[in-house]
Amino acid sequence: MTIITLTTDFGVTDGYVGAMKGVILRLAPNVTLIDISHAVNPHDVRHGARILATAAPEFPDGTIHVAVVDPGVGSSRRGIAVRTTNAFFVGPDNGLFSPFFDSKVACVRLTNRATHQRHVSHTFHGRDVFAPVAAHLANGMSINELGPPLIDPVCLVEPEPVRTDGGWLVAEVVYVDRFGNLVTNLSPGNWEQLEPADIRVVVGDIGVPFVRTYSDAAVGELLALIGSSGYLEIAVRTGRASDVLDAGIGTAVKVWGV
Amino acid sequence: MTIITLTTDFGVTDGYVGAMKGVILRLAPNVTLIDISHAVNPHDVRHGARILATAAPEFPDGTIHVAVVDPGVGSSRRGIAVRTTNAFFVGPDNGLFSPFFDSKVACVRLTNRATHQRHVSHTFHGRDVFAPVAAHLANGMSINELGPPLIDPVCLVEPEPVRTDGGWLVAEVVYVDRFGNLVTNLSPGNWEQLEPADIRVVVGDIGVPFVRTYSDAAVGELLALIGSSGYLEIAVRTGRASDVLDAGIGTAVKVWGV
Amino acid sequence: MTIITLTTDFGVTDGYVGAMKGVILRLAPNVTLIDISHAVNPHDVRHGARILATAAPEFPDGTIHVAVVDPGVGSSRRGIAVRTTNAFFVGPDNGLFSPFFDSKVACVRLTNRATHQRHVSHTFHGRDVFAPVAAHLANGMSINELGPPLIDPVCLVEPEPVRTDGGWLVAEVVYVDRFGNLVTNLSPGNWEQLEPADIRVVVGDIGVPFVRTYSDAAVGELLALIGSSGYLEIAVRTGRASDVLDAGIGTAVKVWGV
Repeated sequence: MTIITLTTDFGVTDGYVGAMKGVILRLAPNVTLIDISHAVNPHDVRHGARILATAAPEFPDGTIHVAVVDPGVGSSRRGIAVRTTNAFFVGPDNGLFSPFFDSKVACVRLTNRATHQRHVSHTFHGRDVFAPVAAHLANGMSINELGPPLIDPVCLVEPEPVRTDGGWLVAEVVYVDRFGNLVTNLSPGNWEQLEPADIRVVVGDIGVPFVRTYSDAAVGELLALIGSSGYLEIAVRTGRASDVLDAGIGTAVKVWGV
Repeated sequence: MTIITLTTDFGVTDGYVGAMKGVILRLAPNVTLIDISHAVNPHDVRHGARILATAAPEFPDGTIHVAVVDPGVGSSRRGIAVRTTNAFFVGPDNGLFSPFFDSKVACVRLTNRATHQRHVSHTFHGRDVFAPVAAHLANGMSINELGPPLIDPVCLVEPEPVRTDGGWLVAEVVYVDRFGNLVTNLSPGNWEQLEPADIRVVVGDIGVPFVRTYSDAAVGELLALIGSSGYLEIAVRTGRASDVLDAGIGTAVKVWGV
Repeated sequence: MTIITLTTDFGVTDGYVGAMKGVILRLAPNVTLIDISHAVNPHDVRHGARILATAAPEFPDGTIHVAVVDPGVGSSRRGIAVRTTNAFFVGPDNGLFSPFFDSKVACVRLTNRATHQRHVSHTFHGRDVFAPVAAHLANGMSINELGPPLIDPVCLVEPEPVRTDGGWLVAEVVYVDRFGNLVTNLSPGNWEQLEPADIRVVVGDIGVPFVRTYSDAAVGELLALIGSSGYLEIAVRTGRASDVLDAGIGTAVKVWGV
């Protein structure tokens, strides 16, 4: 059974997600529908891209990921479908799928009106374009039937850690999760070999001990570790680092020893 | 595979929705369960009805919609099942299903105790009555086996736009969604032919430009458009009209040209 | 089709739950995934246990319940799988499954690395250990293949109502639900035979009428009743008892007549 996942900024109150699921099930009754997140910050494409990057790689080959964070709906912004080496992505062309472009095999514009709902609203392409397109892919339609190739989909530029003259690597916080953990953009290639004692981590002017896991710190204390996606993360054991450090997206994190 | 959707005011924290799903799957293991919303405002039947009206029409024929917003649980309020030309609805008889009465084919009271859980609590008919009834419908039971016909189910009266002597149509806000969009009760039959320049929209004493889609306004500016369900809607591009106008349910919206 | 339910404190924003679902579906494509709750209070094992106790008993025999509220992840805390007379439970050994130990048939430590993901992070055993273990159980693996028996899983001690010399039974609030209902730890064995007039309930120095169901009180008034799980509950009709009484977990509730 083909899987279609859904990621949106629609929230779970208003019935908009339900409408998308109804459209999909009408066209492709046997798909398995999985919610990834409907709590993307409204209009925050980057937030959506990071959530997708957390979840989508775990899904079986052939999974179709529909994502709708779409401040430009109804404008000239394009709709796209992307095929990567192991998955499909369907949604607006605004960078939402950037994390997966390294493994992109094909990308098309969604111009084939026969694969959309008969009436397409100006404000809800999630229901009227992306849901039916995903259903058609689930039914075995080739991505090439959805529209012509697109060679320049919008791609978000990610901030990269910067090496200072003094030898520090300056990363930055790019995500704050439910637990107040601060996820940075630093993913040391050799992190499984890192010796905690050799690493120094500084946020503002506060030194943060680098450890293997949360319980290596005392309850309420700051710690730095390599998180579950391989990125450096600042946390407080059973607390909220974002509150303790008054930190958020963009906060600099200086690292020595990587 | 039959689809059963769930819409409640139970929230997603407490396990009440999980209990309902368990009961359904015990009786009808092969149904597809779909959440529409569990964030209906507590006890707010009208809110639940509007959410159902957004999502339910998109589902395939034969879908069974269970909805539980039930401040009168355990009282003499009746439980009902409704069959429309293409779907079933199961829940309390308090107007929750009013949006679908136009296509009502049959309506029964849920009096057949053999189709409920063996022990029915006084406070949780979602689990003890409506879930098992939906499972029986999914298993092919006729709606007539659930109880006797009911000819007068409770029906919510919806406010209608009013025409003033001066020629304005005065609509009102009936729903505020996650994005702060103000959805009115005005659905111009000919809205696909409307010329934006011919329409004037006023909220309080503020004129709001009528446009086709969000991106026809500048970021942060007010706009009016026909939303995805065909109703006039007031929005702010990538902002919140409800905050900008300090408006909500009941706010009057005056329209000229329709 | 085997059912796997998920209960976590991960929230529904970050994609962590989605990652777990992806892992499960990759290993066991035909399972039915059901969310019980992802809004367990962060790190609050007792909260998670109560939510499971509300929902899990309703599911069909053979259902596999994965629950992750895991402040000790990465420490020496053990991972476990529990088989009861009718279900399986998979998660950290911290008491999360205590409500089900009365019907425990087998309990094992999750030490068989072949049943985990190839790389196991220090911080996300939900994805790397518990999800794949649940998938293997769904595929028919015996619980004994997961690791050696564990005879002393961590068990939460629940507060019991106390009988005073004066003859009152002093219960306490152990859960506050979305509606502000105060659920106590008192479950009178004979509650279906109780006569409302014979029971007195006092919170602080406020007498609360004991009734059968919410609508036996006037809107806005306090009431006590036996809730849907058989426990004494304090509520306000279409209001919030937790606010009206400024009460929460641990608030004493004195009862006469049971």
